[in-house]
Amino acid sequence: MIDYSSPSLVSVEEMNAFIGGAFGGNQNACEVMSFAMAVAVMYPSVASLRPGKIISGPTVFSICDAALFYAALSATGMEPMTLTSEMSIRFLRPARGEVIRARATLNSIGTRSIVGSVVAYTDDESKPVAVAQGTYARPKKNPAQ
Amino acid sequence: MIDYSSPSLVSVEEMNAFIGGAFGGNQNACEVMSFAMAVAVMYPSVASLRPGKIISGPTVFSICDAALFYAALSATGMEPMTLTSEMSIRFLRPARGEVIRARATLNSIGTRSIVGSVVAYTDDESKPVAVAQGTYARPKKNPAQ
Amino acid sequence: MIDYSSPSLVSVEEMNAFIGGAFGGNQNACEVMSFAMAVAVMYPSVASLRPGKIISGPTVFSICDAALFYAALSATGMEPMTLTSEMSIRFLRPARGEVIRARATLNSIGTRSIVGSVVAYTDDESKPVAVAQGTYARPKKNPAQ
Amino acid sequence: MIDYSSPSLVSVEEMNAFIGGAFGGNQNACEVMSFAMAVAVMYPSVASLRPGKIISGPTVFSICDAALFYAALSATGMEPMTLTSEMSIRFLRPARGEVIRARATLNSIGTRSIVGSVVAYTDDESKPVAVAQGTYARPKKNPAQ
Repeated sequence: MIDYSSPSLVSVEEMNAFIGGAFGGNQNACEVMSFAMAVAVMYPSVASLRPGKIISGPTVFSICDAALFYAALSATGMEPMTLTSEMSIRFLRPARGEVIRARATLNSIGTRSIVGSVVAYTDDESKPVAVAQGTYARPKKNPAQ
Repeated sequence: MIDYSSPSLVSVEEMNAFIGGAFGGNQNACEVMSFAMAVAVMYPSVASLRPGKIISGPTVFSICDAALFYAALSATGMEPMTLTSEMSIRFLRPARGEVIRARATLNSIGTRSIVGSVVAYTDDESKPVAVAQGTYARPKKNPAQ
Repeated sequence: MIDYSSPSLVSVEEMNAFIGGAFGGNQNACEVMSFAMAVAVMYPSVASLRPGKIISGPTVFSICDAALFYAALSATGMEPMTLTSEMSIRFLRPARGEVIRARATLNSIGTRSIVGSVVAYTDDESKPVAVAQGTYARPKKNPAQ
Repeated sequence: MIDYSSPSLVSVEEMNAFIGGAFGGNQNACEVMSFAMAVAVMYPSVASLRPGKIISGPTVFSICDAALFYAALSATGMEPMTLTSEMSIRFLRPARGEVIRARATLNSIGTRSIVGSVVAYTDDESKPVAVAQGTYARPKKNPAQ
């Protein structure tokens, strides 16, 4: 059972310092971290917009992926080699707005993989632009260490 | 925006009467209906069990699919030709128990399709055995009618 | 790189003997096994049919899941604890017919997980009724053994 | 039944002219078009790379999404309002390389939606870095026109 009221094992500041250093071209930031939950935020560049100023599907995917990564680390501590193994996304309405956020909540935390669900939204969280679910593969323990 | 506090457009009794008539071999029942939310319940047959008395993956899928169908009809009224167009499911832990339930919540209700998220569980809803998301395609309006 | 021309590590006969013993209620059989590929076949029961004699979605899911399981074992040898960790399925047309088959082909064979793609069809493989992709989690190696 | 030997209804040149005009920030190009099949190619920018020069997951998603879009238009003709409604992706191995391609093949072409499967690869198509499946929603016919 996941205790969503526990504190995050990684702070927002630690998370942003990590991604700023490691991911030079990263366009999003971590905004909220609590245990097994995180919010990612992005101000899309012009290159991320489609005709009609709609935020592109891959951009929406990227913010969902980031939020799930943050949520995973909130529950495991900093494991930078945690990698997405799979994700599915459903686009619900055109993503219009100056800013996009994604809220990820973990559904299970295993020794090998972590599963979570994500809701992406622009102005109004009650009108999500996409929902996603995905799995992170945790790094293999090295028995020699 | 979905008003989850509205009443369901189909009652539990109507839902069970419909599936009992149309789906002779149906092993599950509708237990709860509110607007854009439904719970399906199943007492798995021996044929649905794997070694270790684990409820099989396809059986877990079937209860998720049923719950999403009920949730879709809760928001559209009885549209029996609503069909699953796609679903993805993640299995979180072995499904042990005498009974399995799935709770589906809609994420969007469009004129052509409906998207929802599902959590399946046996004894303890806080330890889900699977999560799923899927899309229902609504019947085409016949302009000649 | 997967050598699809290698022989299967498990024969059709071994596969069917295994599922007949372990899965008493199993409605499908393995029809073809080659390395990283398998075909599962099912003659759906009346309980699996929907109005219009359409094979139900969960039944289609179950034959896809079975085919992917067989394909996974074709490449690993008999690892009965291989378990589906996730699967997504898209339903393409109503599944009408007396028999349904699913052909699974592996996309990757890792030490921890196996990914494959599946096509399900009734009379005509060129008109698939569903496509699916999924992941199997391989059993953990027990370092104490 | 899809006739994969038919010619594409949109040429590579038409496709690239369209995306160059409409999608200013687009980083990929269409390389191959035949009926119900397309290849997209991308030379990832530094911003798309993760530590170890691995092409990021969202970048891999974006090339899969583009390939499926091209494949959809190859079979429908230019319908620019075709939109991804859902996609699932599985990451198979780290995406290392100077260039990434995705080959999309359609599984069904309906009046309302189109389903296809995608394989993404860098140097060696026989060692894919990801597989994906997804659905495109076609524009609604306007009965007033």
